[in-house]
Formats: sequence, C-alpha cells, structure tokens
Amino acid sequence: MHTLLHELQAIVGRQHVLTEGDLSAWTQDWRKRTHGKALAVVRPACTNEVARIVKACASYRSAHPDSRVSLVPQGGNTGLVVGSTPDDSGQQIVLNLQRMNAIRTLDAANLTVTVEAGCILQAVQEHAQAAGFLFPLSLAAEGSCTIGGNLGCNAGGTQVVRFGNARDLCLGLEVVTPTGDIWHGLSGLRKDNTGYDLRNLYIGSEGTLGIITAATLKLYPLPATQLTAWAAVPSMEAAVTLLGLAHRHLGAGLTGFEVMGQFALSLVAKHFDQLRVPLYADWPFCVLLENSDHESESHARAQFESLLEAAMEAGCVTDAVVAESLTQAKTLWQVRERIPLAQAEEGLNIKHDISVPVSAIPAFVKATDAQLASAIPGVRLVNFGHLGDGNLHYNVQAPEDQDAAEFLRTQEPQVNRIVFDSVMAHGGSISAEHGVGSLKVEHLTHYKSAVALHTMRAIKQALDPQNLMNPGRVVRA
Amino acid sequence: MHTLLHELQAIVGRQHVLTEGDLSAWTQDWRKRTHGKALAVVRPACTNEVARIVKACASYRSAHPDSRVSLVPQGGNTGLVVGSTPDDSGQQIVLNLQRMNAIRTLDAANLTVTVEAGCILQAVQEHAQAAGFLFPLSLAAEGSCTIGGNLGCNAGGTQVVRFGNARDLCLGLEVVTPTGDIWHGLSGLRKDNTGYDLRNLYIGSEGTLGIITAATLKLYPLPATQLTAWAAVPSMEAAVTLLGLAHRHLGAGLTGFEVMGQFALSLVAKHFDQLRVPLYADWPFCVLLENSDHESESHARAQFESLLEAAMEAGCVTDAVVAESLTQAKTLWQVRERIPLAQAEEGLNIKHDISVPVSAIPAFVKATDAQLASAIPGVRLVNFGHLGDGNLHYNVQAPEDQDAAEFLRTQEPQVNRIVFDSVMAHGGSISAEHGVGSLKVEHLTHYKSAVALHTMRAIKQALDPQNLMNPGRVVRA
Repeated sequence: MHTLLHELQAIVGRQHVLTEGDLSAWTQDWRKRTHGKALAVVRPACTNEVARIVKACASYRSAHPDSRVSLVPQGGNTGLVVGSTPDDSGQQIVLNLQRMNAIRTLDAANLTVTVEAGCILQAVQEHAQAAGFLFPLSLAAEGSCTIGGNLGCNAGGTQVVRFGNARDLCLGLEVVTPTGDIWHGLSGLRKDNTGYDLRNLYIGSEGTLGIITAATLKLYPLPATQLTAWAAVPSMEAAVTLLGLAHRHLGAGLTGFEVMGQFALSLVAKHFDQLRVPLYADWPFCVLLENSDHESESHARAQFESLLEAAMEAGCVTDAVVAESLTQAKTLWQVRERIPLAQAEEGLNIKHDISVPVSAIPAFVKATDAQLASAIPGVRLVNFGHLGDGNLHYNVQAPEDQDAAEFLRTQEPQVNRIVFDSVMAHGGSISAEHGVGSLKVEHLTHYKSAVALHTMRAIKQALDPQNLMNPGRVVRA
Repeated sequence: MHTLLHELQAIVGRQHVLTEGDLSAWTQDWRKRTHGKALAVVRPACTNEVARIVKACASYRSAHPDSRVSLVPQGGNTGLVVGSTPDDSGQQIVLNLQRMNAIRTLDAANLTVTVEAGCILQAVQEHAQAAGFLFPLSLAAEGSCTIGGNLGCNAGGTQVVRFGNARDLCLGLEVVTPTGDIWHGLSGLRKDNTGYDLRNLYIGSEGTLGIITAATLKLYPLPATQLTAWAAVPSMEAAVTLLGLAHRHLGAGLTGFEVMGQFALSLVAKHFDQLRVPLYADWPFCVLLENSDHESESHARAQFESLLEAAMEAGCVTDAVVAESLTQAKTLWQVRERIPLAQAEEGLNIKHDISVPVSAIPAFVKATDAQLASAIPGVRLVNFGHLGDGNLHYNVQAPEDQDAAEFLRTQEPQVNRIVFDSVMAHGGSISAEHGVGSLKVEHLTHYKSAVALHTMRAIKQALDPQNLMNPGRVVRA
C-alpha cells in the first residue's frame, strides 16, 4: 500500500496526499449520517494528475488482485445521499477536485462557459453574471457545492421548471475514464450526433463510470428583471391549476414555482420569528412564483397581475402578494429556503426527495398523507418542493410528543415503504434530484425495474471492470 | 432460415411478413443512395410482438452461430445517413414500426404526451395542437418521419435554438432490448435521478442498442402568435451579432434563426420562379427569424421592431421585412425549405450536416470556402442552416461547366476531407443532426476520439453481444 501512496505523492506532491489528522471534512457526509475512513485524501491540480492517479490505482489493483483500493471522487462534499465519502474499509482514496477550480473560457457569442470540475457553483454564477449572462443552476448549497458534483449527481434546484437539471445545462465534458484515459469531450455544440450520448451517461453516474474534470455549460442572457409573487391556494389541486395558468400567462418567464405546506411554513414562523411568513395561516398551501422577464419590471409586473387576476377568478388563488422590492423578494425566498432549517430545529426527521407527474401530485399527497396518518397517529408532514417539475421534499416528522431519534430508529423503514410504494403507484421516482449514492442503493434494487438494473450493471462492468470507481454506489456491480 | 420466417409469421401474422414483390419502400434509403436486400420486412402491431421478434432472432442466432441474421429498426425511412435500410446480404430483417402509431395518452397538467414509435411526427404535432399545446419538434420530413426514428437519430430541425433536439423533448421511453426484454421506462417525470441515464443512451443510438417502441414527450403551451422576419446581413459575422441581439431582445421567444447564403437563395429564385425571394440580390446572407409570443401579435411585432431597429443601428442588418400575414410568413419559410429542392434541380451535390460553436462559424466559413475554391476552381457553395444552434448544411455543388455525377465521383473524398478537417479544426461535429448510419461510420472512425470510440464499442458489446441490432451502423462492433 505504501508504494501506492508514494506514487500518489509523486503525482500531486506530498502536501496534497492527506492521511493524518482530522480528515472529517472529506470523510464525513454532509448530513453527518456516516463517517468513513479513507486510505488517503488526494487533491490533484489538473486533469493529467487525475489521469495519472487513476492509472496508478488501476495498476496497483492489477498487481494486487486481493486489494480493494478504489476511488471516491468528491467535489464540495455537500451531497445528500452518502455518495462522495469513503466507506469504513480504510481502502478508499478520496479524490477531491476542489483545487481544479479554474474558469477556462467564456464564449459570449456561443453562450457557453467552460469550467473545471472543482469550481464552486456560485463562482460560476458570478462569473457569468459579470459578463452579462445567467448560469441558471441554483440550489441551497451553491456557495460550497462544485460543478463536478452538480453534474455527477445531475443536481436540480429551483430553476428546473424553466432551465432543466444540471444535465440540461451541459454541452460537453472532459472525463477521466476508469483506465486513466482522458476523454476530451468538451464541446460548445448544441447539435452533435456522432455516436452514443456519453456525456449524459457520465452525468448522473455519481463518479461510478469516470471522473468529470471539466464541463462546457450553457449560458443565457441575463433577464432584465426577476419578480417574485406569493400566493395562498385552497388545495394542492388548485396549486396544479395555478401552475398551468402560470405556464400560459408567463411562458418561458416562469422560472420558479415552489409549493409549501401549512405545517412547513408554521415551523419557519415558529423557529425564525424575525421572518414574516405571509398568508399561510388560513390556507393549506402557499406557492412562490418567479417571473424572469427580458423586457422590464413593469412588463413583468403586468404579466404577474394578469396571471393572478385569472387565477383568483378561477378560484385557484385565494390571496396573493407581488414583492415590491428586491429585498422583499429575497425575504420570500428566504422563507422557502428556511424550511429545511426550521425542520431541523424541530427535530430529526425522515427526508424524501421524490417526484411524480405534476398531474398526479394531488392524488399522491392525499393518499400518502392518509396512509401515514393511519399507520402513525399524530405524524407530522413537512411537505414542500419544486411543484413546477413534480418534485416534492415530502418529509416526515415525529408526532409532537414522541422522541425524534426513537421515531427514526423504529419508524424509518415503515415510513420509507409507505412513501416509496405510493410514489411507485403514482408513476414516480424515489430519487428526484439528490441521486442514489449508498443511501438509496438498496431501495433502487427493490424499486427499479430489473431490466434497467441489468442494463446499468452491464454498462458498469463494461466500462469499469475493476470496479475502481466509487464502488457500491448507484448500482452494485 | 425458413423456421425463423415461420416463427415471425406466427408472431405478427402472415400478411405482415413481407418477402416478395417490390420492397424498395423499405429497402431503399430516402436519398436513393443504396438499395439493400432484406430477408423480410416485418411489421409488428405492438410492443409485445417486437419483443417476441427480437427473442426469435436472438434464439435463431444462438442456434445458428454462423448465421448473420440481424434486425434493422425502421420508422418512416426518411433518414439521411443510410441507417434504416438493410445491407445487401439478404440476411437482415427490416423491423418497420409504422403500424404502432397510437397516441396513448395526453396529460395536460403534466404537459406530456405518450405516443408509440410509429406515430408520424406531424400527427403528434396536430394531436398536441388540438389539445391546445405545442410539440415543437419540426423538420422537413415531418409529414412522413416517425417519432421512433426522430428519437433513434436525435433529430434536430428548425426549433432547436429554443427547444433543443428530439432528445431534449423526451422524458421517457419504452424500449425492447437486444435480449427481447421490455424496459418500461415511459415516464412523465422531469426529475428522476435513480441511476444511469438509459433514456439518453438509447436516444441517438440509431437502433443499435435496442428498439424504441414508445415515448413520453414534452408539450408546451401554444404560443399566442408566431411572427416571422427576414433580414439581409452584410456578413456572417453580422449574422452572429444579430443572433446575440435576438437572444437579448426576444428571450425565449426566439424559436427560429436560419441563415441562407446568396447562392443558395439564387437557386431558389432560379428554379421556383413563382416564389419571391426577398432582399438577397445585394447581400451575401439573409436570416429568417421566428418570434413566438405567449401574449399577442402586437406585442410580438413591437419586440421584433425593437430588435431590428437595434440591429440596424449596430450595422448588422441592412434591410428587413416582418411578415404581415400568416401567408406571408409561410412563404418566407417556403423559400428556406425549398433550398434543398432547388439544389437538387441544379444537379447532384455533396451534402454536409456539420456544426461548430456559433462563435466559430464566420471563421469556419471563410477558411473552408477559401480551401475549396483553391482546390476546385469554380466550385459553388450552397451554404444554409440553423445558425441559432451552430448547424450548417454546407453543401458543395460542381462548377457550372462540370458534369455533376463526374464531380461527385472524383471529388467527394477530397471535398469531405477539406470540410471535415476544417470542422474539426474549429471544434465542430461532422454530423450535427442527421446521425451516423452506415454513411458516416468510416468518417467517425477517422474523426472521433479513440477514447470515445472505445467507450462506445464497450457499451455496444455489453448490451448487444450478438450484434443483433442494426449491426455496422454508428460504431463497428
């Protein structure tokens, strides 16, 4: 093993092979559910170093067939499915890409930016904005997550209703394959039909098929203005009707559509009493809408007003406010973003990241609420999410009088079963935007079609026969 | 062999296994470049029949290891790269999916429609429109091509600048795998991160990894209006500047941006003298712009006027007209769509379907024009295409005094080499929207990166070890 570590030191420099001291920033997952043990944390500076690291590990494995040495690619380590931290074998090498954080080029006429995998998402957003463009991927961890991680797990976030997931924002990749070769697939092309779609195969594969080292991303012109509205709706059905109206009235201007349940909002009001939570007291759900307009604020406001008027007439909105200032808009988004924090303040809970077709959301929520209430009297549901793209964070909190840790220990399997069975019955997905990692790999075995799993395994074995790349994640070899 | 044909007859009915008479509708490619010989043309009625056909062929191959029986999936047979017709071995079965043309469901709240692979593209467009929605895929062959073919080769067309390629319009697939299993991957989900992106792997694989039998497609609200403008521009650089302005002024309203060279337009004027071709006489290029607006025609017109004013001020438009009526708009599109026909009237020519980053288009055109003119004095260039997404149909016509057939025979390899080398030097793709088929499979071997080809071959071998699915297309096993 020492030979391998020496080799890695020779590649990246001794100071970038960490083996001692507190390594928990790299070995503990974001939600602190697991704490692994790494053989080393290696921090390469460039794509060639990544390729040499992979070759060194592959050679070591060939020479030592009994060894379990493998690689765990890591960006900002903000993932939610335990996909970027080592297991407890002490044989996994964390390959952290944060030193590779250069923005290589911005091509204004082509509306693209090419960045290294270790770039912080917010740095890419800011670089684009400074040049007059929008890079629309936006999510809670944007201040610390990296583009490589975003693409590795096909991150979603709040702008998906208009711009799609990380996958939809990527035109080309540079990837180090499991043999340590470099695929120079960076491309600013919007049309390229020369063979299989390797780009999308690597995106979302969570580092199990190769290591994304750089990407060419789509940019959009900065909108002239972004307006935010907050609407109370009488039911989830009404929220879905409002979404349809918003598509028709705002067209591609609709860049955000978030739904929030009354209990979720009450937790924000309770735990962040300096924040004013509007309109939630009398209605089961509120919706946050964002309208991005390339013309002007007054045009955006007129559009919003016409939408809300139509929605009130249709009975799907009972009350609404349009933010009068940027500060007010930010406050509305803050309320939305504080829900997970408020929930944590309230105590441990069981999180879900599920999606169903938008049309099935009301039935899904009704059926699942009822089943949980009947199985666990007094259970509390923190339901919120990106309704615009069918993605709910349907979280389950212990009854008020019950110990949260005890609740998790005893009820998590049952709660997951009820929620996931209901998701499947409604044509949905048990992981909408967070990915699989090791957290959901067993669930996948149960819920994913056998044909799909067989195909995934065949691809994994064909591209990574040594099982060197993030083994045990996404799909068991 | 007879046993296999009997088995196929038992599966689909005797009348749907065609072996005699004129089969050229299925065995000759659209551009009549090649005429193959089929063992049979088989026309299944449903997904289960497709699965049984594949199983029957796979079994036959297992029992007869020397046999070369294989399957060629086919939709409307309008492809341009000889990908959906049999070779001349007489051992390939054409699996034509046109009987599978049901529209299964339209989900208005989810903005999706689920259709079988054999649906004609135009039928899907019309079904969507009747329900108040837009299915934006649009291309010249839309009256006869099928959705299965569109997805199989990831078709592009004229709306890509706003809506992306066929790939970007598909949320889920039903696929029969090379083992005859059915992957039930139909899904109306906009977020689903449960494993590798099999959908995008099948899309664009041209039937070499499995047979797409149905798809769930994205719908958009119908725009309130679509306006068309026609602008003369002084150079290709000016056209690119105009594109940037159009993105800023029209936002997501910009749904079409086509460039047409003066010689291309002169051929339309010459061969279709009933069509008035505007503004082309004095300028090297014209641009066709489409603005889709969810508000009103007057709003769209004001947007266009503000854009064209800014463009004239910037010097990138010298003259322009905005269509005053739907008829006038249709005529402008007709001029654009007649270019390939006018070119055919003028004589045989060498067609290219290439893309480069939008920012590189002026340099690419200048360099390639010069190289061709120097290699073949008097050569004529029919240059037009979807500038909005970097895709040019950069076609090469014989000098006026030269026999076209002779030109093709003697000059095609040299012309292809000059064009493709230049494409690669400018970071482009030698097949932007038409695919690879058998026409470009050798070119790919030369121009595609070895790492990508190796990865593609590994996937093909892993998923189709018998090489049963459209062998010899896209990538040689």
